[in-house]
Amino acid sequence: MEAVEAMDAADPLQHFRDEFVLRDGLIYLDGNSLGALPKATLERIQQTVLQEWGQGLITSWTEAEWIEAPRRIGDKIAQLIGAEAGEVVACDSTSVNIFKALSAALSLKSDRTVMLTEAGNFPTDGYMMQGLAKFGGAAYEFKAVPRDRLFDALNDDVAVLLLTHVHYKTAAMHDMAEVTRRAHDAGALVVWDLSHSTGAVEVDLNGANADFAVGCGYKYLNGGPGAPAFLYAAKRHHHAQPILSGWFGHARPFGFEEDYEAAAGIDRFQCGTPPILGMAALESGVDQILRADPAAVRQKSIGLVELLIKEMEPLCKEFGFDLSSPTNPTQLGSHVAYSHPNAYAMVQALKARDVIGDFRTPDTIRFGITPLYLRFTDMVEAARRLRLVCEQREWERAEYQTLAAVT
Amino acid sequence: MEAVEAMDAADPLQHFRDEFVLRDGLIYLDGNSLGALPKATLERIQQTVLQEWGQGLITSWTEAEWIEAPRRIGDKIAQLIGAEAGEVVACDSTSVNIFKALSAALSLKSDRTVMLTEAGNFPTDGYMMQGLAKFGGAAYEFKAVPRDRLFDALNDDVAVLLLTHVHYKTAAMHDMAEVTRRAHDAGALVVWDLSHSTGAVEVDLNGANADFAVGCGYKYLNGGPGAPAFLYAAKRHHHAQPILSGWFGHARPFGFEEDYEAAAGIDRFQCGTPPILGMAALESGVDQILRADPAAVRQKSIGLVELLIKEMEPLCKEFGFDLSSPTNPTQLGSHVAYSHPNAYAMVQALKARDVIGDFRTPDTIRFGITPLYLRFTDMVEAARRLRLVCEQREWERAEYQTLAAVT
Repeated sequence: MEAVEAMDAADPLQHFRDEFVLRDGLIYLDGNSLGALPKATLERIQQTVLQEWGQGLITSWTEAEWIEAPRRIGDKIAQLIGAEAGEVVACDSTSVNIFKALSAALSLKSDRTVMLTEAGNFPTDGYMMQGLAKFGGAAYEFKAVPRDRLFDALNDDVAVLLLTHVHYKTAAMHDMAEVTRRAHDAGALVVWDLSHSTGAVEVDLNGANADFAVGCGYKYLNGGPGAPAFLYAAKRHHHAQPILSGWFGHARPFGFEEDYEAAAGIDRFQCGTPPILGMAALESGVDQILRADPAAVRQKSIGLVELLIKEMEPLCKEFGFDLSSPTNPTQLGSHVAYSHPNAYAMVQALKARDVIGDFRTPDTIRFGITPLYLRFTDMVEAARRLRLVCEQREWERAEYQTLAAVT
Repeated sequence: MEAVEAMDAADPLQHFRDEFVLRDGLIYLDGNSLGALPKATLERIQQTVLQEWGQGLITSWTEAEWIEAPRRIGDKIAQLIGAEAGEVVACDSTSVNIFKALSAALSLKSDRTVMLTEAGNFPTDGYMMQGLAKFGGAAYEFKAVPRDRLFDALNDDVAVLLLTHVHYKTAAMHDMAEVTRRAHDAGALVVWDLSHSTGAVEVDLNGANADFAVGCGYKYLNGGPGAPAFLYAAKRHHHAQPILSGWFGHARPFGFEEDYEAAAGIDRFQCGTPPILGMAALESGVDQILRADPAAVRQKSIGLVELLIKEMEPLCKEFGFDLSSPTNPTQLGSHVAYSHPNAYAMVQALKARDVIGDFRTPDTIRFGITPLYLRFTDMVEAARRLRLVCEQREWERAEYQTLAAVT
């Protein structure tokens, strides 16, 4: 344990932990589902509600620069994902942004009809494609194939390939540049879902010659429950047409013109009035992570993940956990997944020991590794508590057996 | 003035004013653009951020019942608009909900192709239709006709008619039951935009045999800047298919299934993860307005509007304001509009005298009348200050001439 304590002592990111509301004793391994609360966000929200809304009222749209929030926060997120200012906008939910990105991509490939993804991708990605495909006389087709057959499926019909960069279950990470190149060679565009990447692994969208991307604000960006998501469109695609043409995507939203004229640039990917309370919390989270060196974040993530996998090895042998994540760091995001026949009950029993991980149906235990507020000693302690859960068969208790909805 | 003070003293809603953050001297006539901040909302947000997010973390999705928020708040809003529990859901922006309602209506009228609205409707309503119409080989057509030609335009091609119940500029109010009946007679469905109605005028969706409706959370519901909007679908249309098929609209969101199966009931109109901070503020605003008798709200609204119109009459004659709103209360919502060649500068000069109204291009001054926090004496005082602005030609100052974006 001394060696592990030394790793914490040498951690260049260790001071970030104190910036979060996290009670003593809790080991929170679910920051990839909902990031923890930065203390600064409390103050920021108070300011937004009491000063900006309460005192400034309608004038805050200009005087507190609410109107700029989607672009301003977008420009900040751009720095985390290898995009330029003016290529990212913070708005709507990830699902809605997937729809916009897909429809924009389809508008650029009007001679092609297939939307492709990999089987087992995060459900909402596929669902949004299925909704699009059903609409308007089924002009488009939805197709999901296993990961190892993706390249074979890139034929002349494929308009757009939608992939999650880091898989929500296994954390397996696609080679963004390589996949994008293969898709482009086949004449298709790619939409990257960065929900499990942004703020956790290094992403270089423009370096990969990416087309579109979306991502989530409430995981590693610590933007709060249901935080606004974001959308990236490469500058060369800023003439594309998302179907969702609301007034905030208009060239002159306050011209109140009858005919829709899409704004130049990334603004056309906005739609309705921006959710300002959510935006304020998201910006606070993004401001915080921008103070962390991305290389240090990635290095610590790998270190934490490797340590957890090492600590879990004996438990795998003794208690039947089975690692579902890749072990090569270049192919791994920032969480670790195990399968276990009693996964759901195990997660519940661990929670009673103040270790929060999450369960993904049917048999996955997922440990989210957030470098800003987790310590190397937490990895050892989490494995120690799981050992107690197993040795004392705590997971067998009746109250841990009933499946409940947890996001 | 004494008679007017007596009206305030007799106002059964007068105690609500103290429940809002509103500084002395300010006359806020823009609550139909952004409602004022209820004091209770501050505490509610603090609770949501610090306790539920900060302490509860991921467990708050179930333990603080975040997961139920869209339905729970929807059921509350239902009480304000003549809908039943299970017919309304709070989610997304008004624009996105318009898109869902339109696409659901189109899915029910697959033999028809026209989406109809009135010319001069709030732009985002038309824009969303135009986006839909452009998509997928232009299977659908967008048509806008003047209000007095709407019934003539209801031919066999019209799948759906989208109207704003209370017009955003003039406050002219449609007869919901009559319009709905005429549309149904012509075989079309109706989507009602209740943005300027909900919480201000009595709405009876089921009484009018309505099909779909959407509305805004940040006006008379005082839900905060960019609050989540809502969507109503009559029970008989719960098999309709909105295109936006995200995971929160799935029958089993946490089943993580590959194929989309729409939830039974109103839940299928959800899409992505609900924005919890905005939901908390919205719920606080809705809880407040539910404590007010809707008949008293409407009666006070009419009283305030009539008083303002009366006080404005001499100014119309002397300074060239021209009333654009109907004067018959049964045809009027809860704001009053005037046209004036110097409308923009007038609004700015009034603001310097602590009266906040708003400007709508090209020449409209709009005074929002919110019965929960406005007083009868405010109507007299607002007209008095506008008289000073006119008599002293304050609106001629150079700094009031430059048009800036204000929502």
